[in-house]
Amino acid sequence: MPQAAALTRDEQGERHSLDEFLAAIPGIDASTDITDRKRRSRDYFWYSPILYEQLKTSLADVIVTPRDEAEIVRVAAACVEHRIPLTVRGGATGNYGQCVPLQGGVVLDMALLNRIEWQKPGLVRVQAGAKLYDIDAATRPNGFELRMHPSTKRSAQIGGFVAGGSGGVGSVTFGGMREPGNIVAARIVTLEPTPRVIELRGDAAQKISRAYGTTGIITALEMPLAPVQPWVDVIVAFDDFIECVRFGHAIAMADGIVKKLLSPVQWPVPKHFAAFRAFCPEGKNVLSAMIGEMSLESFETLLASTRGTMTYKAASEDVLGKVPLYEHAWNHTTLQVLKNDRSVTYLQCLYPHDRLVDAVAQVGAKFGDEVYQHLEFIRLNGYMTASGIPVVRYQSPERLYEIMAGYESCGVMIANPHVVTLEDGSRYKRVDTDQLGFKHQVDPLGLLNPGKMRSFAPQTA
Amino acid sequence: MPQAAALTRDEQGERHSLDEFLAAIPGIDASTDITDRKRRSRDYFWYSPILYEQLKTSLADVIVTPRDEAEIVRVAAACVEHRIPLTVRGGATGNYGQCVPLQGGVVLDMALLNRIEWQKPGLVRVQAGAKLYDIDAATRPNGFELRMHPSTKRSAQIGGFVAGGSGGVGSVTFGGMREPGNIVAARIVTLEPTPRVIELRGDAAQKISRAYGTTGIITALEMPLAPVQPWVDVIVAFDDFIECVRFGHAIAMADGIVKKLLSPVQWPVPKHFAAFRAFCPEGKNVLSAMIGEMSLESFETLLASTRGTMTYKAASEDVLGKVPLYEHAWNHTTLQVLKNDRSVTYLQCLYPHDRLVDAVAQVGAKFGDEVYQHLEFIRLNGYMTASGIPVVRYQSPERLYEIMAGYESCGVMIANPHVVTLEDGSRYKRVDTDQLGFKHQVDPLGLLNPGKMRSFAPQTA
Repeated sequence: MPQAAALTRDEQGERHSLDEFLAAIPGIDASTDITDRKRRSRDYFWYSPILYEQLKTSLADVIVTPRDEAEIVRVAAACVEHRIPLTVRGGATGNYGQCVPLQGGVVLDMALLNRIEWQKPGLVRVQAGAKLYDIDAATRPNGFELRMHPSTKRSAQIGGFVAGGSGGVGSVTFGGMREPGNIVAARIVTLEPTPRVIELRGDAAQKISRAYGTTGIITALEMPLAPVQPWVDVIVAFDDFIECVRFGHAIAMADGIVKKLLSPVQWPVPKHFAAFRAFCPEGKNVLSAMIGEMSLESFETLLASTRGTMTYKAASEDVLGKVPLYEHAWNHTTLQVLKNDRSVTYLQCLYPHDRLVDAVAQVGAKFGDEVYQHLEFIRLNGYMTASGIPVVRYQSPERLYEIMAGYESCGVMIANPHVVTLEDGSRYKRVDTDQLGFKHQVDPLGLLNPGKMRSFAPQTA
Repeated sequence: MPQAAALTRDEQGERHSLDEFLAAIPGIDASTDITDRKRRSRDYFWYSPILYEQLKTSLADVIVTPRDEAEIVRVAAACVEHRIPLTVRGGATGNYGQCVPLQGGVVLDMALLNRIEWQKPGLVRVQAGAKLYDIDAATRPNGFELRMHPSTKRSAQIGGFVAGGSGGVGSVTFGGMREPGNIVAARIVTLEPTPRVIELRGDAAQKISRAYGTTGIITALEMPLAPVQPWVDVIVAFDDFIECVRFGHAIAMADGIVKKLLSPVQWPVPKHFAAFRAFCPEGKNVLSAMIGEMSLESFETLLASTRGTMTYKAASEDVLGKVPLYEHAWNHTTLQVLKNDRSVTYLQCLYPHDRLVDAVAQVGAKFGDEVYQHLEFIRLNGYMTASGIPVVRYQSPERLYEIMAGYESCGVMIANPHVVTLEDGSRYKRVDTDQLGFKHQVDPLGLLNPGKMRSFAPQTA
């Protein structure tokens, strides 16, 4: 191991050397190699030009890769003893710097905690570092699949998804991770002199949902599953984007039509869907969807009364080596554009459920070619609605904030993805009260991912 | 075969003898035995004292029991030739005289057309006379179950359910039969001189949904299925009925909690739940529910924040010889009371989705002990709402109509179950335009279940 540098950041008014910390965790894999530290201090924050400037130089002092929960407990204790920040890293597929160590210190790489602990009908218990793709592959032979996954299913880890995601492919049926019933239990390690291991069951598991790892180190999760269904990927092309949204909405509202994904995408975004370009006709808006095979005929029946044309229909196959349709939905939609055009960025919004189509039309009229709309139908609080991840032509931070204000003036809520704190990134610009209170119990010194929960004031020693 | 009587009812201005009709269908089972005719001319219309008076003397002239579709075609042709009304009988579990021959003639008993034609993942094709229980038993080993079934699952037939039902156990997730995607195809025989056999696919299948067999003789159905899930039956007791409804609504709206049944029932109705009396504490309102096993802990978590107490929890077992919990829901709820107290009847209503709990409270305040509320959470047009099947202390037709008007004044819609016509029994007091137009094509003389679709004026010869 190369000689470790002294820690240069210390928010607790105490200064400890990295060497002392490393000496306290013998036998645990720790890397201070600069290439490694650079590589494992980032995520996909570069989707945001604002975050890119803010986060590009953030760097861990050491990357620690524990093999099991016992090692995590030892790392946690050492961090508390030496007042060293600890930021948990999952698959690093997030877009807001969730796993970027704003104040340096330890990045805890969860990759080796990837075991599936057990399966029961409709339930799976996994270590937090298990990849979504691997979980799905393990539960599928037993007749169950993940209820929802992000478009980054192939590289994201379950812990990171729960800690930073809100929902994804499947949320059109089950709603987001925050809906009661979508996380059954979470096991965490606290940042205390003698770290505790706590099992959070039922509603208590929500204390770690979308908290960016600020409320405990998640080591295991118990997740509900959905029965496996035969899915069919379809693409439908429309001349008119509003008609595309309207049809998507009709399918969304039809509770007899089983679906996992419904994504209306405005032209020219589909031009960038390289793997499906042949099925995205020039100038057409598309609805990408995953439909239950038994509902396909009903889907086509409803389609027949529109001017839409089905251009693609094939059994959903999630095999490595083949680009899946779901990698053209959620924030992969933005990524497909960014591959060709780095002058764009994106927003995250929530359309009002009771005037969804009107709001889409209003936003479209307001911004024209500066914003290309992309919706994801989801259930939220028991209502069918749509979130939106529009692709935005980027000019300046000021103009981006103007666009956000414009969305809000149309009654569309914004969860700003160009900020690093939980509060600024939430639709309500605040952290969940439960999570804030809980953080005082499990991380009184504020060592977990410091800088991400700005409402939190650490206990003064 | 006993000597057949001459037909005494003939609405077409022509008179034919029953003997001529019987001579036209040699080899097809036909019974003119009076006991048999009485027995197979009724359904559960006696739930309504009004319908009881109206229908108790209605009687078929002959009961025909075809073995296959070819025999049905021959019967249909003979009915047209001899201008004889034809009323289709399924399991006869309906409550509005759907299979009661108002104008005599033929009752066509579908019991022998009970074959399961094929199964595919998520789909089943069955003959119309197959019992729901038998279909479920056949698909379950392949991992699928009926999306919804009435509380009469054990005796109802699929054809009768589609022709007269609106939904049932499962509609809290999939909505009713009318939702797009909940009937994939229907095959019918028309009442024409040369009867046609028509396959109605997709949306066209809705032409026979809840038409009481007036728009063709349904011979086969293609129905979508749901993946089998491990269900748990639960009963939760509440002092306060409104709290019971509010909790049911919270579960209904929680898209992460998998459910098949959610039925708040007001005390003293549960007093009559003989098989579950031990789990229905004196004076308490109950929520009966079927919850996905993987969601049970989440259900209990939400319950913990109420004053409700779980009194019963057991795996849902649908085995003959054991009374299932679902036989205390939907209109079986009324039946359980009627077993002890013949002085009650019932209504069918639909609560407004956006002020559901308020409407329940309003109705409760208006009628006190004259009406005991019983709700069934269902999805309708993409929204979660509740239908209601209150148990009503019966005084007179006039008072019953006053109560209906009172419900409507609270914003609760009524589908009157004390009338025999489709129009009067619908929430909108009219027949579906498509169905009316379609009837002109498939039954121009109006021989199918005459008297049930009163907007229909038969073609004059």
